[in-house]
Amino acid sequence: MIGRVCIVGAGTIGSLFAGHLAQVVDVCVLTRRREHAQALDEHGLRVTGRTELTARLDATADPSALPQFDLGIVCCKGTDLETVAASLEGRAAQATLMTVQNGLGAEGVVRRHGDWPLISAITFMSGTRHSDTEVEYILDTATWLGPYEETPLARVREVEALIRSSGLRAQAFEDLRPLQWSKLVFNATVNGVAALTGLPHDFHFASEAEPTDLGRLVHALMEEGTAVAQAAGPGTADDPWEMNVHATGRGSGHYPSMLEDVNAERPTEVESINGALVREAERLGVEIPLQRSLYALVRAREASYS
Amino acid sequence: MIGRVCIVGAGTIGSLFAGHLAQVVDVCVLTRRREHAQALDEHGLRVTGRTELTARLDATADPSALPQFDLGIVCCKGTDLETVAASLEGRAAQATLMTVQNGLGAEGVVRRHGDWPLISAITFMSGTRHSDTEVEYILDTATWLGPYEETPLARVREVEALIRSSGLRAQAFEDLRPLQWSKLVFNATVNGVAALTGLPHDFHFASEAEPTDLGRLVHALMEEGTAVAQAAGPGTADDPWEMNVHATGRGSGHYPSMLEDVNAERPTEVESINGALVREAERLGVEIPLQRSLYALVRAREASYS
Repeated sequence: MIGRVCIVGAGTIGSLFAGHLAQVVDVCVLTRRREHAQALDEHGLRVTGRTELTARLDATADPSALPQFDLGIVCCKGTDLETVAASLEGRAAQATLMTVQNGLGAEGVVRRHGDWPLISAITFMSGTRHSDTEVEYILDTATWLGPYEETPLARVREVEALIRSSGLRAQAFEDLRPLQWSKLVFNATVNGVAALTGLPHDFHFASEAEPTDLGRLVHALMEEGTAVAQAAGPGTADDPWEMNVHATGRGSGHYPSMLEDVNAERPTEVESINGALVREAERLGVEIPLQRSLYALVRAREASYS
Repeated sequence: MIGRVCIVGAGTIGSLFAGHLAQVVDVCVLTRRREHAQALDEHGLRVTGRTELTARLDATADPSALPQFDLGIVCCKGTDLETVAASLEGRAAQATLMTVQNGLGAEGVVRRHGDWPLISAITFMSGTRHSDTEVEYILDTATWLGPYEETPLARVREVEALIRSSGLRAQAFEDLRPLQWSKLVFNATVNGVAALTGLPHDFHFASEAEPTDLGRLVHALMEEGTAVAQAAGPGTADDPWEMNVHATGRGSGHYPSMLEDVNAERPTEVESINGALVREAERLGVEIPLQRSLYALVRAREASYS
């Protein structure tokens, strides 16, 4: 029985979870900034777009002030995860924690700080954060979740049911890893190419008519990534190239987060996405020269920040 | 005997040639913009930096108004070369023309518009254009020149002597092609990587300590390019990697033109540099997957311009 959920990190994804879940369960929020917590405490959280609601929340920037909770959804960016997980160490002994970071390895980072049962998750929800207390819910796509290590599938199903009861989409899987790999290969390629070229994820990514068309490179990058997924064991659940063709066929291009990050000269998630893929390939002895190049170029782009 | 030189295109390089050569020979200038020609006619051309001089010039934007000349130095950007060469068709029957564009194939573009004797050239001079009538001479490095097709070496030596007499550096070679290939491989790599990453040509390009350091990618790209140069016949005169290490060892990084172009959302010279390299590799059956990626990414960057 999940009586209270703690949302750790109230960016776009964290805010979408917090706003919806607060309709069906007690929600507390751990923010990075004190003024963010104060604003949420004072004004609540407004969700617009596909849902229209206002949620009352308990928010704090101080981990020691958190009440006990049964489920923690860790929504911070991958670049902040180490710090955030360390701040939870020794707390919430009875809680299950769920990670929704992009890339690979978030569960391992959290595990180093405690023996909570963990749930792996990847989310395809999207939204736009308009302020500390308002988020617009744009794409009502699902969050996928599965057990990590010994976590019972029943616990995962319980979380799936809770999320669904709040009005969000969720789907539990016995083994999330092939889905994580599909998204990893997709994200490494689409985010990396977008960050370097400035292109949103538009038709260029799927154009293969001419030998020099960008789609040829995207396809080759995804084939390299798929080979790593196969060598790692799980393989890919969905073909990343088909995901790419499908996503770009929807019309106007989505701006991948890594492109937004480099445009704003913010640290990107290149280490937990492209870096994770390259390190897995090295560990498994798979040659991925094009993905290695992409990784080196995005890192160099970060090094160019003024 | 060279009595009059026509400078075709008065960007930075054209202005440096025009200002210096006007000290020792009659110089006329063909500009793209009418107001540029008027400004040069009215105020002359000022060179600052390594040289301090003011030159009186005849300038026009109308090819039919050009006087006869003995040597034409074609200094326009590669992206304008086809239009510029077409505007010279049927003119200056007794002239020798010299091309200084980056990349490969400039001589062939000019040849399609007339049977002038041609001189191949590459220049390492650099400067900054402050206005239509002022250019700052920054690096007093040489222009290298050599015969194209049947042009006698004696003609090349005559041009070398003229350029030197004007205070600029020049060196004639019997076969410029290995030097052109060195510069092509160097330029394709350094310009492409800089355009994508936003980095000036600085120490990152030569760092190879860690497997993921940018220098590893730069080195691999240059090895691919060198393989094409060898398959093409001439090979490279100077090792592009050593040129890279040497250039980045000078301290603060130079901003390659392709980086300046993408920052200003201008068309780049990617076709005559990276495109030329990729097409030569295809013609010769040499596999260059990393250079192909670089080419596709820079083209995609251009496609992202708003």
